[in-house]
Amino acid sequence: MPEPKFEVQMLHDRVMIKVEKEAGERRSTGGIVIPATVEQSNRLVWGEVCGVGTHARTVKVGDRVLFHPEDRFEVEIQGENYLVMRERDLHAIANERPEHGTGLYL
Amino acid sequence: MPEPKFEVQMLHDRVMIKVEKEAGERRSTGGIVIPATVEQSNRLVWGEVCGVGTHARTVKVGDRVLFHPEDRFEVEIQGENYLVMRERDLHAIANERPEHGTGLYL
Amino acid sequence: MPEPKFEVQMLHDRVMIKVEKEAGERRSTGGIVIPATVEQSNRLVWGEVCGVGTHARTVKVGDRVLFHPEDRFEVEIQGENYLVMRERDLHAIANERPEHGTGLYL
Amino acid sequence: MPEPKFEVQMLHDRVMIKVEKEAGERRSTGGIVIPATVEQSNRLVWGEVCGVGTHARTVKVGDRVLFHPEDRFEVEIQGENYLVMRERDLHAIANERPEHGTGLYL
Amino acid sequence: MPEPKFEVQMLHDRVMIKVEKEAGERRSTGGIVIPATVEQSNRLVWGEVCGVGTHARTVKVGDRVLFHPEDRFEVEIQGENYLVMRERDLHAIANERPEHGTGLYL
Amino acid sequence: MPEPKFEVQMLHDRVMIKVEKEAGERRSTGGIVIPATVEQSNRLVWGEVCGVGTHARTVKVGDRVLFHPEDRFEVEIQGENYLVMRERDLHAIANERPEHGTGLYL
Amino acid sequence: MPEPKFEVQMLHDRVMIKVEKEAGERRSTGGIVIPATVEQSNRLVWGEVCGVGTHARTVKVGDRVLFHPEDRFEVEIQGENYLVMRERDLHAIANERPEHGTGLYL
Repeated sequence: MPEPKFEVQMLHDRVMIKVEKEAGERRSTGGIVIPATVEQSNRLVWGEVCGVGTHARTVKVGDRVLFHPEDRFEVEIQGENYLVMRERDLHAIANERPEHGTGLYL
Repeated sequence: MPEPKFEVQMLHDRVMIKVEKEAGERRSTGGIVIPATVEQSNRLVWGEVCGVGTHARTVKVGDRVLFHPEDRFEVEIQGENYLVMRERDLHAIANERPEHGTGLYL
Repeated sequence: MPEPKFEVQMLHDRVMIKVEKEAGERRSTGGIVIPATVEQSNRLVWGEVCGVGTHARTVKVGDRVLFHPEDRFEVEIQGENYLVMRERDLHAIANERPEHGTGLYL
Repeated sequence: MPEPKFEVQMLHDRVMIKVEKEAGERRSTGGIVIPATVEQSNRLVWGEVCGVGTHARTVKVGDRVLFHPEDRFEVEIQGENYLVMRERDLHAIANERPEHGTGLYL
Repeated sequence: MPEPKFEVQMLHDRVMIKVEKEAGERRSTGGIVIPATVEQSNRLVWGEVCGVGTHARTVKVGDRVLFHPEDRFEVEIQGENYLVMRERDLHAIANERPEHGTGLYL
Repeated sequence: MPEPKFEVQMLHDRVMIKVEKEAGERRSTGGIVIPATVEQSNRLVWGEVCGVGTHARTVKVGDRVLFHPEDRFEVEIQGENYLVMRERDLHAIANERPEHGTGLYL
Repeated sequence: MPEPKFEVQMLHDRVMIKVEKEAGERRSTGGIVIPATVEQSNRLVWGEVCGVGTHARTVKVGDRVLFHPEDRFEVEIQGENYLVMRERDLHAIANERPEHGTGLYL
């Protein structure tokens, strides 16, 4: 790996999300549930944000975000899989101190 | 459950709705009827709002809202099922003192 | 019926319409014809408005409105069936003193 | 007919048009040709306007209007059939003194 | 023909075009080529304008216009066939002194 | 050819393009490659502009333009074939002194 | 090659991208991974920008860009293959000093 000099920046309203390892339904370290069959028709899943474009208004790095798996793109960087979504397709966020929390916790 | 520290916040115009337990058609504690076959083509159903995004204009937490089941997304949080809708896809609300009530009660 | 405390309010440009009992084609008390087979391709039908959202501009409670049955949603409240439409999908109204009447009467 | 008290008013840009009796292709009293098979793919037909919504800009009651039969809705009022169209779907008008006439007469 | 009193006026951006007699591919009096099979997938044809709506910006009566036959509507007036198009669907005009001519002549 | 008096003018954002003779893949006089099978799914081709509408902003007569063959219309003028495109569907131009050249030459 | 005098300029928001040689999945000189089967449903790939239209806002020549292969057009210039994309369809860039980097490196 002699040339890791290109750093990634998200464009527009794109959001990059870490992918949980696929291993049947289980609870992740952040309390996030990933169903074994993520393509289940209307079922949303949670992921952790690791990059946002300059047009994203609310979502920040570190937030958990709720999204529909069918809207995702996928990319592999340094052997890790990531998802790419548009912020407008995200339905909810979860973090430690949201401004307009629902009182529901992951 | 040692890490329930992430609180959920709805994004944009998204509305989170509590799901009634499926058990055939019955009247819920709030007088809400859930048909046994909710996918019936044009039939709307009622649910109770438990979270709204900052772009939602009229709907508030605690309101009953009238929606078409086909427009819903689903998410499970702490073992409970919730629906996610866009406010613009909701057709009516019901609460104890609406500003422009129809004179019809649930 | 111990909890009829939730009053319904229509959202956006939604209009709630009373459903005529289905019993073959007959003339209703307001002179309204409901065909026995309402799904007939391009045929419009009349109904009576019993609720309008705050974005509705012309239609008022009590108006008869002309609509295409395919555009309707349905909801049951206290055992009665109602239709839900968008005002922009209504084609005409009829009332006792319209501002721009056609000279045609139901 | 004891209750003909509801007068019809067209909504938005809707236009109500009198239907010619179907009896094979023939020339109407206003010189209007109605083909026996009006559904013919791209063929336009003429009708007489008997009501216009407040958003209609050019078309007036009494005008003949040129339209595509596939764009029509139908309604029966007092036993007579009428068509309902949107003004923007009308292609031409014909009247006794048009402001921008083509020099072509029906 | 005792009642030719209704004069036609085009609406909106509609353009009325004279139809060439169908008789195999031949050159018209204005140098216009009409293919025998006008429905040929991407092939454009020329026609002569005989009426324009008030929203038309460039096209004038007498211009030859280049259009795709699939975009046309048809109407018969006094036994003659005419086409009806929208100006935005026209691709080019040809006349004796165009403001921005291509140097190509019909 | 006694009446070549109608000069062609392109409308709106339409661009007229000269067609290369079809004769298998070969390099044209301007260095332009035309594949033998131009309908190849995503493959773009080059052509020479010979007319532009008044809404075209960048493309000028004499430019080579890069386009997708599927977006084209066709017209025959004086026995020569031409293509008609919309400027917004063009992907690149090539000329002798472009303002924002890529350093790539045909 | 006696006439390489036409220089290419991208139009609108179009971006030209160099194509990696197809030879199974391997790491390119810039650390870019090109899967052997690029058409894999939601999988994004990286490419190097070699030309941008004047409407492109963020992407610059030399950037690596992340895109979905299905959105691409293709063009051959001087025997080399290039892709053409719209900037809005690009999901991320990577360069040596991005303004809003994610901390992830190619």
